[in-house]
Parts: sequence; structure tokens; C-alpha cells
Amino acid sequence: MKRPDGFFRQRKASMSKGELTRQRIIAEAAAIFNQRGYEGCSLQAIMAATGLEKGGIYRHFESKEELAAEAFDYAWTTTIEKRSSGLAAIPNQADRLRQHIANFATRTGLPGGCPLLNTAVDSDDGNPVLRIRVRKALHNWQTMLRDLLVEGIAAGTICEDVNVSAAANHIIGTLEGAILIGRIERSDEAIRQAVTHLENYIETHLRAHAS
Amino acid sequence: MKRPDGFFRQRKASMSKGELTRQRIIAEAAAIFNQRGYEGCSLQAIMAATGLEKGGIYRHFESKEELAAEAFDYAWTTTIEKRSSGLAAIPNQADRLRQHIANFATRTGLPGGCPLLNTAVDSDDGNPVLRIRVRKALHNWQTMLRDLLVEGIAAGTICEDVNVSAAANHIIGTLEGAILIGRIERSDEAIRQAVTHLENYIETHLRAHAS
Repeated sequence: MKRPDGFFRQRKASMSKGELTRQRIIAEAAAIFNQRGYEGCSLQAIMAATGLEKGGIYRHFESKEELAAEAFDYAWTTTIEKRSSGLAAIPNQADRLRQHIANFATRTGLPGGCPLLNTAVDSDDGNPVLRIRVRKALHNWQTMLRDLLVEGIAAGTICEDVNVSAAANHIIGTLEGAILIGRIERSDEAIRQAVTHLENYIETHLRAHAS
Repeated sequence: MKRPDGFFRQRKASMSKGELTRQRIIAEAAAIFNQRGYEGCSLQAIMAATGLEKGGIYRHFESKEELAAEAFDYAWTTTIEKRSSGLAAIPNQADRLRQHIANFATRTGLPGGCPLLNTAVDSDDGNPVLRIRVRKALHNWQTMLRDLLVEGIAAGTICEDVNVSAAANHIIGTLEGAILIGRIERSDEAIRQAVTHLENYIETHLRAHAS
């Protein structure tokens, strides 16, 4: 996985000029791939965004496929960081889940919307390198949610009969489906409805209430 | 909107050879666009699928954009027909909704998966003709669900305090989100979980129970 933004900033001082250029290409390309898709992202657009010549880009990457894979990892790390913002400070797991969901409505990520949605559709039929990265990103999100729920069950904040895999998929599916509707309508109404639904779902299906 | 398959078959006898060729190009192109996206669908692929030369294709369409828009309408009509299969025969609106949802797990559509998901992502940044068709398709699905719920409220089968717009978006978002997860995982587990969730949602939130 690509390192998060914060890590970049800490590392920058010790990065060689070549490494810095490579990271800059990845960051610029991530926004373009995320908006235009794999086929729609031209070398010309990356050259324009970075101010580099073709040779200056391909010195750092063996192929468009390699650049797209690195750009996806960067986009996903940036996205999951925003979605996880503020979670570590919340001790109760049900409240932490509510914050994770609230982050969707308030924290915008990369231009072009959710990289998981974009790249899953884009890589579905015939881009195996990207497909593997997308699957890894989904599993990383599912694992984060399942771990949170398992931790909550152990701590007594989440009901012990919760099917953690189904609950994780329900949260991810509801949010991603609402993002899709919101993009088609260019409105955040569906996202707000999904957040309300999931808040209610957490309270009625997930949170353990002291008996 | 493009006419449904059944309509094609009825009409075929009276169609000119030119019309038949146009419809055949649309049907073949729909599967290719749905799998590879707008940028990824080449004229060569459509030529190979139809056995026609470039001139034989562009005699019927002014541009790739026009062909893609017609192909999307065809794909969507085919998809919504499958998802609506058997509904007309079910008098109770809550049961009809359950059948609509069950159709997702049992009726596969066009190769490449849900055209709404694919084309929404594909047309999101910079394909206005396709964007309008996708928005129309989503509104068509939302309207179908809202009408069904309003009809059920009038008939006393759906609770009268249901927010029909939010309920329609919840059903669409849950199904489309699960389709996305299923495509990444190449598994129908998330779809089955979504169907179970929505069946439970219909029984606990939508269906009016005789008091």
C-alpha cells in the first residue's frame, strides 16, 4: 500500500529528488485517473498536470498500468484517511462507527469521487493489475469495519450476535450506493439519507444497550 | 427511451432492413460499451461483433456519442425488464417489492453488469449526452418504486408514514452498492446479504400490518 499523506510530509526531507518527482506524478495522475478512468487518462493530460515531458514520466514508471496502480493506491489511502478522520480519539466502538459514517457527508476526497467505485467499474473487465489493488482496498475497508465490530463485541459496546461480515458489507454497500445516486443527481440528498439510515441501523441493530 | 426486447420482436416483421441493422448494431454495441466503457469501446470491436465495415456502422449513427446513448437506453431497458419480471401478476405492493428485489439475485442481465453503475461512473466527468440518459434511467427507476409505494399506501399494504423518496433511494442504493462489492469480489455474497437486509426492511419498515 502507498503511504498516507502525513507519512509523505515526514519523509519528504529525506527523499531524493527522483523520489519526490515520482510521488508528485502519482498525486497528479491520481486525480486525473479518478476523474477520467484508465482509458480516458492520456499521457498528455499527465504531462500537462506535472509539467514534465513523456521521458520524464516514464523514467519513473514502466507502464501506464504501473502508474495507474500506484495512483489508485495513493487515491485510496487519501480517501480512507479522510473517512477515518477523528476515529482514534473515540473510545466507544458504536460512536466510532457513527463518526466514520458522518465523515462521508462532510469530508470530500479526491476530485472525481470515490476511487473504489470508479476503479472497480473501470478495472472490472480486463485490467488485472488494477483489479487486484481494488480488491485489496475493499478488503482493507471490510477488515477495518469487522475489526472495529469485533473489538466492540469484546468491549460490550456492540451486540454479540452481530454478523460482522454482513454488517461491514451493509455499511460499505449503503454508502457506495448512495455515492452513486448522488453523483448521477449531482446532489448529496442520497448520502444524507444513507447517513440517517445507517445511524438508525447502528442504534437498532449494532449498539449494545446496557440491560 | 429505446423499446424493450419484446417490442423489437413484434416490430421486426414491419422493420426495414436498415432499421433491423441499426437495432442489431445497438444491441451488439450495448454489450461492448457495458463491459469496456465509453473510451474502451473501439469501433474495431463493434465492427468485429457486427461483421460490418466502418461505413456500414456510421451510416446509422452520426457519432460514437449517439451510438453510446442508444446502446445505454437499450441496455437499461433490458435490465429494468429483467428486474421487473413477474411483478404485474402480484397484487400486494409489499410482495411486489420483494419480487423486484429477489429478481436481482436470480436474473442476470447484460454482460458487464449493471449499466446504471457502469455508465454513471463512465459519463460522470465529461460526457453530457450519456449523463442525461443515465439520469433519466435513475429517475425512471426511482419513479417506478415511488409509484409502487404510493399505490401501496392508498391500498393499505404500505405504512402511510413511509418517506417514499428516501425508501426508493434506500432500495436502489443498497442494491447498487452490493452489486459493486459483488463485482470486486466476484461473488454474489454481498447481493444475497442485501436481499436479506431489504426483505427485512420491507417487513419492518414498509409493510402495513393489519392492526
